[in-house]
Amino acid sequence: MDAIRWNPDHTLSLLDQTGLPVREEWITYAEYAPVIGAIRAMVVRGAPAIGVAAGYAMALAARQFAGAEDFAARMDRAADELAASRPTAVNLFWALDRMRAAVRRFGPDPDALEREAVAIHREDAAMCRAMGEHGAAVVPEGARILTHCNAGALATGGYGTALGVIRAAHEQGKVSMVYADETRPLLQGARLTAYELAADGVPVTLICDDMAGALMARGQVDLVIVGCDRMAANGDFANKIGTYSLSVLARHHGIPFYTALPSSTVDLSLPDGTAIPVEERAPEEVSAFAGVQTGPAGVPVWNPAFDVTPHQLLTGIITEKGVLYPPFGRSLAQRFG
Amino acid sequence: MDAIRWNPDHTLSLLDQTGLPVREEWITYAEYAPVIGAIRAMVVRGAPAIGVAAGYAMALAARQFAGAEDFAARMDRAADELAASRPTAVNLFWALDRMRAAVRRFGPDPDALEREAVAIHREDAAMCRAMGEHGAAVVPEGARILTHCNAGALATGGYGTALGVIRAAHEQGKVSMVYADETRPLLQGARLTAYELAADGVPVTLICDDMAGALMARGQVDLVIVGCDRMAANGDFANKIGTYSLSVLARHHGIPFYTALPSSTVDLSLPDGTAIPVEERAPEEVSAFAGVQTGPAGVPVWNPAFDVTPHQLLTGIITEKGVLYPPFGRSLAQRFG
Repeated sequence: MDAIRWNPDHTLSLLDQTGLPVREEWITYAEYAPVIGAIRAMVVRGAPAIGVAAGYAMALAARQFAGAEDFAARMDRAADELAASRPTAVNLFWALDRMRAAVRRFGPDPDALEREAVAIHREDAAMCRAMGEHGAAVVPEGARILTHCNAGALATGGYGTALGVIRAAHEQGKVSMVYADETRPLLQGARLTAYELAADGVPVTLICDDMAGALMARGQVDLVIVGCDRMAANGDFANKIGTYSLSVLARHHGIPFYTALPSSTVDLSLPDGTAIPVEERAPEEVSAFAGVQTGPAGVPVWNPAFDVTPHQLLTGIITEKGVLYPPFGRSLAQRFG
Repeated sequence: MDAIRWNPDHTLSLLDQTGLPVREEWITYAEYAPVIGAIRAMVVRGAPAIGVAAGYAMALAARQFAGAEDFAARMDRAADELAASRPTAVNLFWALDRMRAAVRRFGPDPDALEREAVAIHREDAAMCRAMGEHGAAVVPEGARILTHCNAGALATGGYGTALGVIRAAHEQGKVSMVYADETRPLLQGARLTAYELAADGVPVTLICDDMAGALMARGQVDLVIVGCDRMAANGDFANKIGTYSLSVLARHHGIPFYTALPSSTVDLSLPDGTAIPVEERAPEEVSAFAGVQTGPAGVPVWNPAFDVTPHQLLTGIITEKGVLYPPFGRSLAQRFG
């Protein structure tokens, strides 16, 4: 399963994730500008996938501007525009910085810049595989795993972060059930995670977000694994709204709580989670669903797309370089400093 | 605002709550049997409102069977059928027991049985007013209150339990904001609570269930007040799924957590919450919304309608006889034993 394809004719195709699981439709981009809208509208979403898509958008821009005298300035503006699409996932800025550096190194060479974007994509998929191998070791036999949102193949360059760990553990025969929080308001758990896991034959049960606590109280959750959109130097991390509630519930029930992330998601420039910008999205995501009004007309809504989980509630951090344990400030600096 | 009306022609009208807030439609019943389906389909819902509707259904049955020789046996069967509609809210069984007693007392007298049903309705509304007065005292000035599901006028004989407390506190100028959890899967918070409060001019902000923890972490919740479907003798109580998670989150953040309920919701026959039967409902409530599929076709779903919150996580119980505090086993026995 994949959601991002670079085509032989130097165009980018994205699986429109807003229509899943009902409608499987690919959209092809020949220019970088519409990719900004695709990221904003969550045609492509998930921190690593946003980074990969932004890299390819820069490869598209390189072909658009290859003959221009002010190539470097135009590429810089394109990167700035892409950077303004969404604020929280740091992989976006990481991928754009890497493409900016490639522009400085290679100049107006669309083939070289395309190779850099492809490398970002391949490396991300490879990091997910490595994460899966390291992470599977923390999964007990017969595990019943709760996850939130979608940190899968659809959210990455392939295989997934949290779902990569679950896939690897499933390949080892260790997973007896995955509980997927539906993840309101945009239902990535129902629409994407349940879809990905069912397609791969991983046993999955869908629940509403407000059922997670009751499930834990019944003793039916052995561990929680989620993805990550940005991790600060002390291990505090932003992830899809609802992650923080799960971390509190897991702690109350004595359940191990892990996040899985590639090094491109670590932002050592931020001392702690209070500095992570949290995107707030349109109220209509909450007050309507599939065009059907759910709240009364004009009701005020609070709709943060992410929340920040403090490192104290985290059992371990699963990365492509191994599983990190507290004190996270030290273990993160050692591996990624 | 009301949802249950007894008409001068001895028929029952229910506001169809499945269509709110978009469609305001009343359904009128002249016989008891279709009321069973209405309770099951949640045309009428909320523990006290189910009790009131069941009382009126028995009044309808009384007029249907008034000329029958086996009046008492038929009334008894009608009560048995009504009792099988939903398992968790104890008010249903309480109201039916009261109507059974009235049948024994008055015999085949439809007018007397109608008066008993009207009395159940009026007493419920009066208990809500009393709860409001007692409960408003625990609400601090400028309070920001989180609530879950709908424990309002629509869920009761009028005024509401949790929302009755909020209404009374609002009349005293104490409420700066009510945060309404949308309450998946059936969205009673979005569709009913936000609608009721907005109609009454109470400031309300709608959030998704998975945002409650993040809101508490930001220091924006001063107290939580929820309703109740059945309370055991030790104070453990069943309420809409998601209530338990909120109680854990409130405890983690040091936020007072109250439930509001009339004495008809207390079931002293059960020693603790493990004995409360929890209804599980159809998977389609979770895997589809408004006819739109959200999960992949055929995905397994866990869909409990309620969860049980242990008394240890409860700050106080707001009743028509005053606010009860721990030890709840003793305070419940003193007031309701």
